[in-house]
Amino acid sequence: MPAPSISRYPVPKLEDLPEEIRARILEVQEKAGFIPNVFLTLAHRPEEFKAFFAYHDAVMLRESGLTKAEKEMIVVATSGANDCLYCIVAHGAILRVYAKDSRVADQVAVNYRKADISDRQRAMLKFALKVALRSVELDEVDYQELHGHGFSDEDIWDIGAIAAFFALSNRMANLIAMRPNDEFYLLGRLPKGA
Amino acid sequence: MPAPSISRYPVPKLEDLPEEIRARILEVQEKAGFIPNVFLTLAHRPEEFKAFFAYHDAVMLRESGLTKAEKEMIVVATSGANDCLYCIVAHGAILRVYAKDSRVADQVAVNYRKADISDRQRAMLKFALKVALRSVELDEVDYQELHGHGFSDEDIWDIGAIAAFFALSNRMANLIAMRPNDEFYLLGRLPKGA
Amino acid sequence: MPAPSISRYPVPKLEDLPEEIRARILEVQEKAGFIPNVFLTLAHRPEEFKAFFAYHDAVMLRESGLTKAEKEMIVVATSGANDCLYCIVAHGAILRVYAKDSRVADQVAVNYRKADISDRQRAMLKFALKVALRSVELDEVDYQELHGHGFSDEDIWDIGAIAAFFALSNRMANLIAMRPNDEFYLLGRLPKGA
Amino acid sequence: MPAPSISRYPVPKLEDLPEEIRARILEVQEKAGFIPNVFLTLAHRPEEFKAFFAYHDAVMLRESGLTKAEKEMIVVATSGANDCLYCIVAHGAILRVYAKDSRVADQVAVNYRKADISDRQRAMLKFALKVALRSVELDEVDYQELHGHGFSDEDIWDIGAIAAFFALSNRMANLIAMRPNDEFYLLGRLPKGA
Amino acid sequence: MPAPSISRYPVPKLEDLPEEIRARILEVQEKAGFIPNVFLTLAHRPEEFKAFFAYHDAVMLRESGLTKAEKEMIVVATSGANDCLYCIVAHGAILRVYAKDSRVADQVAVNYRKADISDRQRAMLKFALKVALRSVELDEVDYQELHGHGFSDEDIWDIGAIAAFFALSNRMANLIAMRPNDEFYLLGRLPKGA
Amino acid sequence: MPAPSISRYPVPKLEDLPEEIRARILEVQEKAGFIPNVFLTLAHRPEEFKAFFAYHDAVMLRESGLTKAEKEMIVVATSGANDCLYCIVAHGAILRVYAKDSRVADQVAVNYRKADISDRQRAMLKFALKVALRSVELDEVDYQELHGHGFSDEDIWDIGAIAAFFALSNRMANLIAMRPNDEFYLLGRLPKGA
Repeated sequence: MPAPSISRYPVPKLEDLPEEIRARILEVQEKAGFIPNVFLTLAHRPEEFKAFFAYHDAVMLRESGLTKAEKEMIVVATSGANDCLYCIVAHGAILRVYAKDSRVADQVAVNYRKADISDRQRAMLKFALKVALRSVELDEVDYQELHGHGFSDEDIWDIGAIAAFFALSNRMANLIAMRPNDEFYLLGRLPKGA
Repeated sequence: MPAPSISRYPVPKLEDLPEEIRARILEVQEKAGFIPNVFLTLAHRPEEFKAFFAYHDAVMLRESGLTKAEKEMIVVATSGANDCLYCIVAHGAILRVYAKDSRVADQVAVNYRKADISDRQRAMLKFALKVALRSVELDEVDYQELHGHGFSDEDIWDIGAIAAFFALSNRMANLIAMRPNDEFYLLGRLPKGA
Repeated sequence: MPAPSISRYPVPKLEDLPEEIRARILEVQEKAGFIPNVFLTLAHRPEEFKAFFAYHDAVMLRESGLTKAEKEMIVVATSGANDCLYCIVAHGAILRVYAKDSRVADQVAVNYRKADISDRQRAMLKFALKVALRSVELDEVDYQELHGHGFSDEDIWDIGAIAAFFALSNRMANLIAMRPNDEFYLLGRLPKGA
Repeated sequence: MPAPSISRYPVPKLEDLPEEIRARILEVQEKAGFIPNVFLTLAHRPEEFKAFFAYHDAVMLRESGLTKAEKEMIVVATSGANDCLYCIVAHGAILRVYAKDSRVADQVAVNYRKADISDRQRAMLKFALKVALRSVELDEVDYQELHGHGFSDEDIWDIGAIAAFFALSNRMANLIAMRPNDEFYLLGRLPKGA
Repeated sequence: MPAPSISRYPVPKLEDLPEEIRARILEVQEKAGFIPNVFLTLAHRPEEFKAFFAYHDAVMLRESGLTKAEKEMIVVATSGANDCLYCIVAHGAILRVYAKDSRVADQVAVNYRKADISDRQRAMLKFALKVALRSVELDEVDYQELHGHGFSDEDIWDIGAIAAFFALSNRMANLIAMRPNDEFYLLGRLPKGA
Repeated sequence: MPAPSISRYPVPKLEDLPEEIRARILEVQEKAGFIPNVFLTLAHRPEEFKAFFAYHDAVMLRESGLTKAEKEMIVVATSGANDCLYCIVAHGAILRVYAKDSRVADQVAVNYRKADISDRQRAMLKFALKVALRSVELDEVDYQELHGHGFSDEDIWDIGAIAAFFALSNRMANLIAMRPNDEFYLLGRLPKGA
């Protein structure tokens, strides 16, 4: 049985890619132990690839009042709302690793209200889901609610920008039928030392 | 009466911006005669600014089976579906200019089905709106319908990528309450020679 | 190229219409400088035409705690929610003229929350949209909220009745594919003296 | 226990009403044996009352390819979709009487697909509900489907105009909390001779 | 004209049914004077029949802080939200009988907010509809609101369990196109002594 | 840190339960190696517990044209649509075990259209989701589509009955905030021999 396709579109070979892109891919491969399919599938369009990961890094790697795990919670919760398999599975894995918690990803993907997270994080995800699903309805009171939980205006930009970036990402993944790597399904699910 | 704010967030002064960003802004100012507020408001976060416009250019300026006016139709129709005032008003103006048509922008923002466009363009916007609103439901038959109108797979990526990028853009504009420049409301509405 | 049709249904000639209807049409033509297509297209059914405009006048011309511009805001905001091109474009023009504001129509058609209007007007449009979209959920607290902004019960009837009348009007326009006159797109957009 | 209010707004006394309106009300009282509350409650605003019933008569009494029972089916089905108690109960009664069928009103108010009606009537109600709920999506193929069931373009206007008029009527009834007369609940439910 | 079918599936003959099921059916027939179609149609699957009525009895006959009429209100309101003709008509009849009120069933099926019920009952139905339509959004504040109306936690389980059981029941009735008995339409509508 | 609560309601001790229920629970514990929380949490109401599992067994254990894995696919897909964490996690685990596939559960919970399943299974899940979300719209053509994939009418009852039973189950789990056992998250994710 042939391996299932990871994209509806042609997937370039590593050696055919521009040096800048190949370097980035090899770097992630070294760190993760495999190449997440988002890298190979989006490389079909090098200019979009570069802008995509520049944007990703700008919102995800930026110093922020949010922890790395909190940022991934936003990704997983909004990807759940958008029914994007790739992002739920891949970022669910990353969230498990960052949070050192084997259950939180499934929880926030389905229902952040009952997840094992803090009230502050629940408020953060409520706001993120409003950006994802009904951004036209954003109102000053929504910002004040987050201020009440200690988020600064810059933190709120971070929350909204991550939700907005994954609005793009989820749609691209669904557009090209991006397939999650098998590795992601299990990552971060085993207790330490197992 | 003071001028209304163009963003919920601080708006940097041109002279305080990194050279690369200031150059881009001056270039657009020279071409348009004014600085569209998206440039000034997003410059609050230089890294995100650079990634945003790199992405914009990658999908909007790329050689494609879609005309420049068709690309703007996608922007206006999906921004209408997302209720994003900035993008409807600003890209509505650009669409009027590219299409040399003073009515098409209002038409596609409200109801592409009855707009003065071709059946091919109607099929394009139907697909774009599915990406914008229900990307999880994309199915092979949707791609075939576009093939039947002469769109290639690469054209379909363009359609979907524009819808996806403005899913991000619409949410950012709503997040920061980005205000359209007054100039955009009128642009492209006057008959030639008026 | 022939002029595009203004209705899916036959459009009567002025000279074939009953005197009462023709007189009304000539009157509006003299005032506006052109005949808005709603008059010609609905005249296909004279009895419905007469009832339609009697209703329109009863709710729109009545002495009221709402200004003429505020009534048109309700029309434009609810027509935006119902995606009715004719009413957005035609009443958007009337709103710009009454409010002497070239931007407010596009603003309330897309998102009344961020429009350049008063908090009182925002509360008015919130109520009107509830009548337009979810009238079953109207509750005493909604009336009290408007009382808190100084609206009387009779004002509230006006708000609701305008939203209700344009629920009809929007559906008729969409049913017969009523086309806005070209004149409306530009009306009220130019600064005075231009 | 006092009788429950039939409107959120003042209900005029018959003797205080303009002659034209009182005559209409006495006429319906003579025919029905009681005064349906829509007459008394809307009489609070005489001009709107006159326009409302002129419109009602124009669409409901017009010679048409639809029977009187079919017109009431449209009223009941769209009022069901809009959750309007007054119209479901009052027009449900009228439908039972016209159709000489004690069950059809409850059936079409809940689910026209499984009602004891003809395929032609099912197509009619499908179109009417599209006008009521998603008129922006009306497309040429919807008209063709009705042509296939023998409906003329004028019949289709009738179907759409009834759905549109009751879009108004349902919202007015919900706005003023119009209460159905007790008589309507039972009317037309008893077998003949009972 | 043959009697219309009461199910899309074969309806067993009483004499072919297992003794336990036949006894239950004869018992209800003796009490009601006819056999409600839910008994005959679900008997096509004896094991599911037994579990269905065991569940029904467990939630509907249990000693509770809710009256029998209140339990039926929940059934009718949630069945209205789910557009299930059988349950609206059959349980509407039962509700009329229990509540000795010929109007309350139609009222709660369409809009509990305006029904002739107590504020406590309105809160109960608001919660039940949330269970029926958006159970993922249930939050501690919803339980507190019911506590404020004097409902205990066990009462709340009853409310939720009835809404949940009829989520099943409504779907089964729609799946097999279960037809309400003619008797139900009139039951409980006549004043006493009529 | 105390163990998080597995239910909003009191959880009975095994030794306090009626013998019939305790026996069932010990049986499942022996087979699974732990007691799934649905057993302990629902045992708070013994009569409902017995009916619940009788219904579960009637639809899930019945001889059928559906395999055990296919039945669990229906559970997982409809629980995904209903956002029920307990059922997605617990039945996702069971599906992985039955299907001997570590990925299929996450796939069908999010988007059955792109899951690694057969076209026949895709049609089955499409029907099940219609039962779960819009059962009023079920139409003869839906049954015919399943016949075209080789499903008998009895198979279709199975599909619908499972979707209906988990409509109940999902709502009960959300009502009582039922917590999935930690064991379920990992079950069936490890390759054989790992």
